[in-house]
Amino acid sequence: MTATRIVGRSLPRMDAPGKVTGTAIYAADFALPGMLHGRVLRSRDPHGRLVQIDASRAARVRGVRAVLTAADVADVRYGGSVKDEEVFARDRVRFAGQPLAAVAATSPEAAAEALAAIEVAVEPLPPIVDVTDALAAGAPLVHEGWASYAALPILHRDGNVCNRARIVVGDVERGFEEADRIFEHRFVTRSVHQGYTEPRAAVAQWDSAGQVTVWSNTQLPFEIQSTLSEILQVPVSKVRVVVPGVGGGFGGKLRVGVEHFAALLARKTGRAVKVMTTSEEELTAAYARQPAIVELKTGVTTDGRLLAREGRLWFDTGAFAGSGPGVASVATLMLAGPYRIPHLLLEGYAVYTNKTNFGSFRAPSGPQANFAVESQMDIIADALHLDPLDFRLRNIVREGEEGPTGQVLTAVGLEECLRKVADAIGWKDRRPAPGRGKGIACGWWTTTGGSSGVYVKINPDGTVALNTGAAEIGTAALTGAAQVLAEDLGVELADINVVSADTLSTPFDFGAQGSRTAFAVGNACRAAVADLKRQVIALGARQLGVDESALELRDGAVVAPAEGKRATLAELARISQASGGGLIAHGTFVAPPTPYDAKRVEGHVYPVFHSPSFHAHAVDLSVDADTGEVTIHRYVVAQDVGFAMNPTYIEGQIEGGVAQGLGQALSEEIVYDAGRVLNANLTDYKMPTAVDVPRIESILVQHPSLVGPFGAKGVGEPPNIEPPAAVANAVASATGVRITSLPITAEKVALALRERER
Amino acid sequence: MTATRIVGRSLPRMDAPGKVTGTAIYAADFALPGMLHGRVLRSRDPHGRLVQIDASRAARVRGVRAVLTAADVADVRYGGSVKDEEVFARDRVRFAGQPLAAVAATSPEAAAEALAAIEVAVEPLPPIVDVTDALAAGAPLVHEGWASYAALPILHRDGNVCNRARIVVGDVERGFEEADRIFEHRFVTRSVHQGYTEPRAAVAQWDSAGQVTVWSNTQLPFEIQSTLSEILQVPVSKVRVVVPGVGGGFGGKLRVGVEHFAALLARKTGRAVKVMTTSEEELTAAYARQPAIVELKTGVTTDGRLLAREGRLWFDTGAFAGSGPGVASVATLMLAGPYRIPHLLLEGYAVYTNKTNFGSFRAPSGPQANFAVESQMDIIADALHLDPLDFRLRNIVREGEEGPTGQVLTAVGLEECLRKVADAIGWKDRRPAPGRGKGIACGWWTTTGGSSGVYVKINPDGTVALNTGAAEIGTAALTGAAQVLAEDLGVELADINVVSADTLSTPFDFGAQGSRTAFAVGNACRAAVADLKRQVIALGARQLGVDESALELRDGAVVAPAEGKRATLAELARISQASGGGLIAHGTFVAPPTPYDAKRVEGHVYPVFHSPSFHAHAVDLSVDADTGEVTIHRYVVAQDVGFAMNPTYIEGQIEGGVAQGLGQALSEEIVYDAGRVLNANLTDYKMPTAVDVPRIESILVQHPSLVGPFGAKGVGEPPNIEPPAAVANAVASATGVRITSLPITAEKVALALRERER
Repeated sequence: MTATRIVGRSLPRMDAPGKVTGTAIYAADFALPGMLHGRVLRSRDPHGRLVQIDASRAARVRGVRAVLTAADVADVRYGGSVKDEEVFARDRVRFAGQPLAAVAATSPEAAAEALAAIEVAVEPLPPIVDVTDALAAGAPLVHEGWASYAALPILHRDGNVCNRARIVVGDVERGFEEADRIFEHRFVTRSVHQGYTEPRAAVAQWDSAGQVTVWSNTQLPFEIQSTLSEILQVPVSKVRVVVPGVGGGFGGKLRVGVEHFAALLARKTGRAVKVMTTSEEELTAAYARQPAIVELKTGVTTDGRLLAREGRLWFDTGAFAGSGPGVASVATLMLAGPYRIPHLLLEGYAVYTNKTNFGSFRAPSGPQANFAVESQMDIIADALHLDPLDFRLRNIVREGEEGPTGQVLTAVGLEECLRKVADAIGWKDRRPAPGRGKGIACGWWTTTGGSSGVYVKINPDGTVALNTGAAEIGTAALTGAAQVLAEDLGVELADINVVSADTLSTPFDFGAQGSRTAFAVGNACRAAVADLKRQVIALGARQLGVDESALELRDGAVVAPAEGKRATLAELARISQASGGGLIAHGTFVAPPTPYDAKRVEGHVYPVFHSPSFHAHAVDLSVDADTGEVTIHRYVVAQDVGFAMNPTYIEGQIEGGVAQGLGQALSEEIVYDAGRVLNANLTDYKMPTAVDVPRIESILVQHPSLVGPFGAKGVGEPPNIEPPAAVANAVASATGVRITSLPITAEKVALALRERER
Repeated sequence: MTATRIVGRSLPRMDAPGKVTGTAIYAADFALPGMLHGRVLRSRDPHGRLVQIDASRAARVRGVRAVLTAADVADVRYGGSVKDEEVFARDRVRFAGQPLAAVAATSPEAAAEALAAIEVAVEPLPPIVDVTDALAAGAPLVHEGWASYAALPILHRDGNVCNRARIVVGDVERGFEEADRIFEHRFVTRSVHQGYTEPRAAVAQWDSAGQVTVWSNTQLPFEIQSTLSEILQVPVSKVRVVVPGVGGGFGGKLRVGVEHFAALLARKTGRAVKVMTTSEEELTAAYARQPAIVELKTGVTTDGRLLAREGRLWFDTGAFAGSGPGVASVATLMLAGPYRIPHLLLEGYAVYTNKTNFGSFRAPSGPQANFAVESQMDIIADALHLDPLDFRLRNIVREGEEGPTGQVLTAVGLEECLRKVADAIGWKDRRPAPGRGKGIACGWWTTTGGSSGVYVKINPDGTVALNTGAAEIGTAALTGAAQVLAEDLGVELADINVVSADTLSTPFDFGAQGSRTAFAVGNACRAAVADLKRQVIALGARQLGVDESALELRDGAVVAPAEGKRATLAELARISQASGGGLIAHGTFVAPPTPYDAKRVEGHVYPVFHSPSFHAHAVDLSVDADTGEVTIHRYVVAQDVGFAMNPTYIEGQIEGGVAQGLGQALSEEIVYDAGRVLNANLTDYKMPTAVDVPRIESILVQHPSLVGPFGAKGVGEPPNIEPPAAVANAVASATGVRITSLPITAEKVALALRERER
């Protein structure tokens, strides 16, 4: 590859000034003159018959402009893979936190007063509080009418299961017969919240043409547009969704959350309405990570070759399917691990319960499945008296081999990741002191596909305006895409101005999800630049009186080196504006399909990992023998990023992802009791703070993707996958105690230590 | 031409709902939370040395957040063709109304109080109050330093003349020698205001990246962006100009007016600032139409052939050049009239005086020059005992002939216009009663060139999003452009959604000026559709399993008639979004150059009329013999619009243009006394009201332009050109009295009638 000027460099992110000075406008800051404040009344009961809602007293509260209940909105069921959601509970309440009514008032205080004045009568029913209840023979159905709901035909639905995704490879029974040893384990993970700094927020305003504009901090403006179109019963093009700024998403802002309330209240009142969530709403009624139960049965040879695996993962998807069917699909690819296993029977289930609709959280299914897979890898290695690193190296997938569904794997940097992270952590001495130990975990992940389109314009000062439908959600991914644009166009990164995430003015984009933004938007930029290059070379040739073939584009100019002539992009843009229509282009990208063996999958929404990334984490920690408290000394990540577009921000992604992963590993849990959340506040829900997070060391491994711009792979989600397993393995190494459920709290470790002593 | 579905039909304009319900957001309505209110202190003196400004008391007024004077802003001279303007007077005051300072305060009242508290010391100098003074030998210079100002090199500048544009054809002296009769006349016109309903308004806000966003009701967002870049001393791309809505412009909102004050005050305060003009500011310190003196010397044969014309038009451009040099250029083309005259010497002057900088107003130079030319045509006809219609028909330009600068004229519908308007008004009986008479006038006008670019996207519901840099200023021109898009793409007009006039998110557009919007944006849409057609045909062929050649695009679908297969645009857009990057395109247009004879022109900014339109007006009126008051019975316009894209809105343009033209003809005048405006309010400045305007009949003549979309020509400005001449000719016909100065007030007519009686 020729030397690059912009990509591969740690240039400052484009959105830095607003963020570091505190002047950036996030959706939560967004305000319109005279706007009303909306609030949502939510069920206190996890399950029950909704007998009556009396909003008459609420409507008389001073300052209240509207009160809406199910009676006031179209009787529409919406949802991604299963249309099972309602705006407000109509006859039945299915989780504690489910919306029952919404109010708009001239102040937040008046809105709160009105909420308190709504009288709700619910006849309680026994809740289905977990997956085991839901799957029990004769269990009542969370959705009695589920068979009539519209759903993706591919799904396998049955009782409270809204999807069962399956991968079958080889003959797992034969594999177990051939195995020398078989290991069976069960792992449990709990729900954790994405912990974005900014609550979900939306402002909506209708115009007289019947178009509603919604300013929202969604990650997916086009998805919100589509869902609002269903809920509001207006065509897609009558809904404009604009993302002013997003204070973190991590998958928690993929789907409609407050936008529909804002839009409905705004339509009712004829005013702009803002709706923003409280911490309590976030922890009871948002799209936190699915709790999971994982059962793994793995057959190996005594010399440490993986032969067969039967794996099942059950997700608690809560009262609605949401992303559950898809995440259950992804889980099956994760259950295989990044390993060569000839016989597989892997199943992922999304199961209804009476809880909030759990959803996507950075690498959805990744930590849950990886915690099980990588914990078991260490258990097996110990049982076989193998070094966990060696055991992994013996089994990992390698260049050109097949993934579990038959995709051919390329750019496989996993061995390099494992070796580098082991070197860095000092693996040879993995139990350096009593109560101290090192753990390792590895994994793979996808670069989500989906379309990206961009418009690109060269301004008369030689700068460039990029219109993209993708939102910048804090990852600097649009900086990455802009680096691609700047590199190809021969301008500086600071020359790029971005207008993003507006369903009207920007092209379609599949959105800021799945580690795809820099990858896909970057590639769409490359397509646009190819067109612009043709335009500026042609115009430059005419201006300079040279042949097009004599010209090249570099340093913001077209240059004829032999003739010693040049024309800057600024000059050419001015000339084109004056006499050529202006220098504009469009570009699109969609990841090419990744071939796989369709016979191996069933009920599978996501059968391959596109341009997969590979990664290994290592941790060195101590466990206090008395309190069970874990102290992390070092944490090292080696991640195959394909090409390090902007090393600083990839390191930022790694550091943030690990911090979040350590929260899941050690302290975070939304605690339920009989369907009600016990710790719906940020004191009792324990996210790590800056003092809790160790310094995280990043090693960027680069095995270039064949598809990504300059070889880049998706980098945002992976760092969140391995921390629970790495920590569990290190705790086991330090103490000999194996914790198989998350979070690995000091209490849990201490109890296990006591148990062992007995 | 094949039958059309959308173009050529009187479909409702896209912006109608917001406007008729009063909910459309104009710039004057635009507000941001917490914004400050800016006001401008303006000079009371027309000319003087600025000795001192003391803003210290003003700065202490409660609620005041900033006071700016020349000392606080970059010492920059800006301007279009001559860089002679300053934000605030620095040493010298050059007109009564010139900005001296600006304040921002928390309320408009506090801002007004602060203005009153600013102490200004000016040492008065004698003002140059009109063009005659300015041109007098030894006249002091309005700009002593004019020679050092940056200016278009093409301009002919001399003393107080900031441009003299000239057309020379043949040998005018020889022409006069060959002529049987020579007629010499002098005409005078006064300044009139565009009378837009909405004052100029702008809101500005800076972000932490050093970018300012300005929401303005400008007609030319890209022009404002460029000027603000100069004034604020930041790169063009650091200025984002967005046009929320425009309540009328008519050329008065082409140039920076309040935007720079808003931006400067916002930068100073760190807050959003809104600045909006008062009626007094509009009438003293805006870009009203240039007052003019026109001298015409025309040589004819006794049988009524025009042989030679020497014509001079002097524009009072006020204290700054502004659009004066360009408008003086256009004037020369208008002085030729739409006539075949073998010998021409035509000059247009823009002359500095101590008045506001007069500017562009719908068909700039048109009414002034046409009033002279068409009044003289009637005078000559009378003198030669020729019917004015016959005299015109004998001399008008015809298909394939040359315009004054040598351009070859095509699609010349002038004869048809003249004959139809004469028929309609009942020309044969042109003095039907004592004191009643009919007048006729004709002219030509340009369709201004300039670049337009568009982005076009097909939405998943089959609707279409159009990004254009042009603003909708009330003419329905963007509806016209959208009709072209809908026609070509086979969708309905209601399917088009427009995002417009945002320098960041939309492509460059030369702007809503010069009757060019539907013409140029429409053609850019055609280019984009050509690309989209290729995309949807290719995708449709793949989807339907037919050959591309079997497919056609119609009724919002690609159809294979023989195979009986179809795929809607909605389906194809969804497929493309899912697996093809989305259906997007861009298109550009710039009018092809119109060849002319460059040797015929000097100092000429605008040497040809592109895709010229032709038009004739006829009026039937009575004059009250006692009061001189004019009562219009009928007013008929026949206009060659090339192709009537949307007949209703063209008629609307004609009706509005004539109403405005009748104001100029009969009542409107900004009255100056020693450089001060005497009638700077809407009571004493007499615009016609609805009860003053007669019913206007429109006849749309269609000689298709070779360039415009479906043959369309520019239609917005022309209706404003002929009313003064038509009225003057009808008054002369009715009374025998020839009024050679505008406005033709009842007082003026009555005095002339008395004079004649004496």
